Amino acid sequence: MDEATLATSANPTALSATQQADVVADQLEGLLAAGNYDAVKMLLQPVQPVDEAEAIGRLPRTLQALAFRLLSKDEAIEVYEHLDPSVQQSLLERLRSGEVLEVVEEMSPDDRVRLFDELPAKVVRRLLAELSPAERRVTAELLGYQAETAGRLMTTEFIDLKEFHNAAQALSIVRRRARETETIYSLYVTDAERHLTGILSLRDLVTAEPENSIGNVMTRDVLSVATDTDQEDVARAIQRYDFLALPVVDRERRLVGIVTVDDVIDVIEQEATRDLYAAGAVEAGDEDDYFVSNLFVVARRRVVWLAVLVVASFFTSEVIAMNEDVLQKVVLLTAFIPLLGGTGGNVGAQSSTVVIRGLSTRSIQALGPIRAVLREVLAGALLGVLMLVLVLPFAWWRGQSALVAVSVGISLLAITTLAATVGAGFPLLFDRMGLDPALMSTPFITTVTDVAGTLIYLKTASWLLINLPQLLSVSPQLAAGWPN
Amino acid sequence: MDEATLATSANPTALSATQQADVVADQLEGLLAAGNYDAVKMLLQPVQPVDEAEAIGRLPRTLQALAFRLLSKDEAIEVYEHLDPSVQQSLLERLRSGEVLEVVEEMSPDDRVRLFDELPAKVVRRLLAELSPAERRVTAELLGYQAETAGRLMTTEFIDLKEFHNAAQALSIVRRRARETETIYSLYVTDAERHLTGILSLRDLVTAEPENSIGNVMTRDVLSVATDTDQEDVARAIQRYDFLALPVVDRERRLVGIVTVDDVIDVIEQEATRDLYAAGAVEAGDEDDYFVSNLFVVARRRVVWLAVLVVASFFTSEVIAMNEDVLQKVVLLTAFIPLLGGTGGNVGAQSSTVVIRGLSTRSIQALGPIRAVLREVLAGALLGVLMLVLVLPFAWWRGQSALVAVSVGISLLAITTLAATVGAGFPLLFDRMGLDPALMSTPFITTVTDVAGTLIYLKTASWLLINLPQLLSVSPQLAAGWPN
Repeated sequence: MDEATLATSANPTALSATQQADVVADQLEGLLAAGNYDAVKMLLQPVQPVDEAEAIGRLPRTLQALAFRLLSKDEAIEVYEHLDPSVQQSLLERLRSGEVLEVVEEMSPDDRVRLFDELPAKVVRRLLAELSPAERRVTAELLGYQAETAGRLMTTEFIDLKEFHNAAQALSIVRRRARETETIYSLYVTDAERHLTGILSLRDLVTAEPENSIGNVMTRDVLSVATDTDQEDVARAIQRYDFLALPVVDRERRLVGIVTVDDVIDVIEQEATRDLYAAGAVEAGDEDDYFVSNLFVVARRRVVWLAVLVVASFFTSEVIAMNEDVLQKVVLLTAFIPLLGGTGGNVGAQSSTVVIRGLSTRSIQALGPIRAVLREVLAGALLGVLMLVLVLPFAWWRGQSALVAVSVGISLLAITTLAATVGAGFPLLFDRMGLDPALMSTPFITTVTDVAGTLIYLKTASWLLINLPQLLSVSPQLAAGWPN
Repeated sequence: MDEATLATSANPTALSATQQADVVADQLEGLLAAGNYDAVKMLLQPVQPVDEAEAIGRLPRTLQALAFRLLSKDEAIEVYEHLDPSVQQSLLERLRSGEVLEVVEEMSPDDRVRLFDELPAKVVRRLLAELSPAERRVTAELLGYQAETAGRLMTTEFIDLKEFHNAAQALSIVRRRARETETIYSLYVTDAERHLTGILSLRDLVTAEPENSIGNVMTRDVLSVATDTDQEDVARAIQRYDFLALPVVDRERRLVGIVTVDDVIDVIEQEATRDLYAAGAVEAGDEDDYFVSNLFVVARRRVVWLAVLVVASFFTSEVIAMNEDVLQKVVLLTAFIPLLGGTGGNVGAQSSTVVIRGLSTRSIQALGPIRAVLREVLAGALLGVLMLVLVLPFAWWRGQSALVAVSVGISLLAITTLAATVGAGFPLLFDRMGLDPALMSTPFITTVTDVAGTLIYLKTASWLLINLPQLLSVSPQLAAGWPN
């Protein structure tokens, strides 16, 4: 997190970040090709590291290493952290190994681990062996934590103080270490065994009397997470309490790292993308890389769910084929199969959407699973009644008989109630079982609803045809008093 | 943002925030009912303001004001900012008007404006009239900005320095104003006309030589947003550059406020919920309040889309009814209507999901709309081919004739391609027109696809029945060499 090097533009909006990267990339390529390296340095000077990284990423591979070498060392490290993994890797191959090591050695440990996650195991082993012992130890330690936990998300660069320091001493420690740590705004207090005993903010420190001891200034009730805490829970805690950082402790409550708010934003976004992709029957990738992956990867991420859905709809086909008789006798029954399937599917999608999102944003927890499902069941029935008002007149007119209208009406109510129950119940059930609530995607739920709905509809119609055949001859014209 | 007052718990995970609020609320109610106010104060002492707010929100209305009065003034203001709008309002009614005014006067201007958004206009007018002139002026100014813009999101509490201050002077200004401003970590430099001329972080300030002037320490290339910049663009800029805050300037580039990272997390989350609700055909509310609103509000937020979808599926019914002839002759054609509609709907949902999310996370912009749609068209065709392999054998067996299989095959290809085109094209078109890309929800796209798909399927079958009637007699048994 580097709020220090703000940069760029008299342009008062941030709208044009992408266009700006385009322009910079074009100019950069021209200047590099012309060998005008001083102009390159001038061009990049006011540009933010993340924008420099984007511009370099768009250069032809052969020019990337050239552009990268023109950056100052501090800048190079920061730009490197923002590059796409594929560009990071190609630079590793093109730069001399001394240059590579210098960059990797200076990266912050959490960014280095994220890079190592993407590199081939062989390259990682070689780089690890060449790191300084201190950096190697911390990197190996971070790599040992499970993916998507606080341990993987945290950085080990933080400032720890002792209770016996006074505020003036503490401030000089902060000054000395300001350049090398990720944040200096959250400060941590540990005892001789590195146990976390308190926390204070730089705000507390600068407003404290210089001779006051840290033990008096700090807050002793500290909210912390464990190294194996799920990254989503870390994100939710930081969001809930408006923190800038959260300390991570090991089983013995020793302080091992901190998670900062900038990483948390990315976790929240990644989680939202996963929920949305689940709702849209797209398998989520590791990153939000859909638009840069090639078409076959895209197809692979979509075809699995489509195949599952097609196989599920074979059952609907079977249900229809098995009820060929009644459809042959009353062909207009067919006209309402899509309407009923669609309504059931949509109600189911609505219920699973709100429940999955509610689980993610932790807004459903206060209600509890039982009451949440009951609410959805009632909502489904209520929606069924409302739909009935809209659909019944059309069904009677278009179906040309009371039999079709009654079948549609009964099954509409049954389907909306069932769909809401299934749509809310599945995600909550999976969540209870410790699985991902979005495991069965929304379209899967809608397909299940479709099969059941079609069955209910055709069975209702068959039953009516046998037991109340007179309904077949009550057409809207008759009811309106016009003999047929 | 108050990272200073961290609190609570030897419990090393944040998982149990909700349960903890439950426990606190129960104990709180008991102690209040028993009149043991000292114990209430002790109970709440280590609890975070947001958790206190949640516990107070769960109390019976009659006890809420009582609990609130037991908080210290500073605490009361912070807790009040975290209360649900309905509880805020009921407290306003139950507290004496002097008490109310004290709280409202001390709230930070952005939180106050958010409260006023929820209150009846009459109450807002009364409260505004009673505020001190300075607070009234800033509140009225913020209320004047459009909802969901930087102007509405920003706070006017920031620290501004002058270029001629030296670092030591600046640090003493920061110390003096630390308690009253939202953040002291981003510092702003303005000229005599309040124009923003530079920015520096507290990190820069504490590491600067005491006699160095601010003009030398600050960064002059400042990224800022305008008061009317959309809140999503503000959020994306803070996320992209890992900022803690972003300055907001008016048309004359005068500094009028800052947006802080904690507000940005909520914007990103709100936006993700909207995308997801659009995908699930649920109308998004102002807040993520689905599980606390009553069933009729829930039904209202869902029934509109359901009604639109039902009316759209009347068209599918019409298409089927108009093709009664061909269905009467080949009843088994009916068996594939749900499969084709479902596949088209799912491919369309996938395409609109990735495009809507790509527009939100700004990951699609680099590709441009034309190439994005072309990619989806190709992806749709590719998925159609893959589906064909799976569906054709089943269609031939279940449909009992080559006519059904050929109709299913041709329309499957046409439908997946069409669905991907429409699914990607609609959101991009709306975005181009300056509308919300999620305006036409995913289910609407799937319903459009459904109508077109059914039409293509039945027209293909009719055409084949007239022009290639011999296909009807080619059944899978015949092809396998078994005479029928």
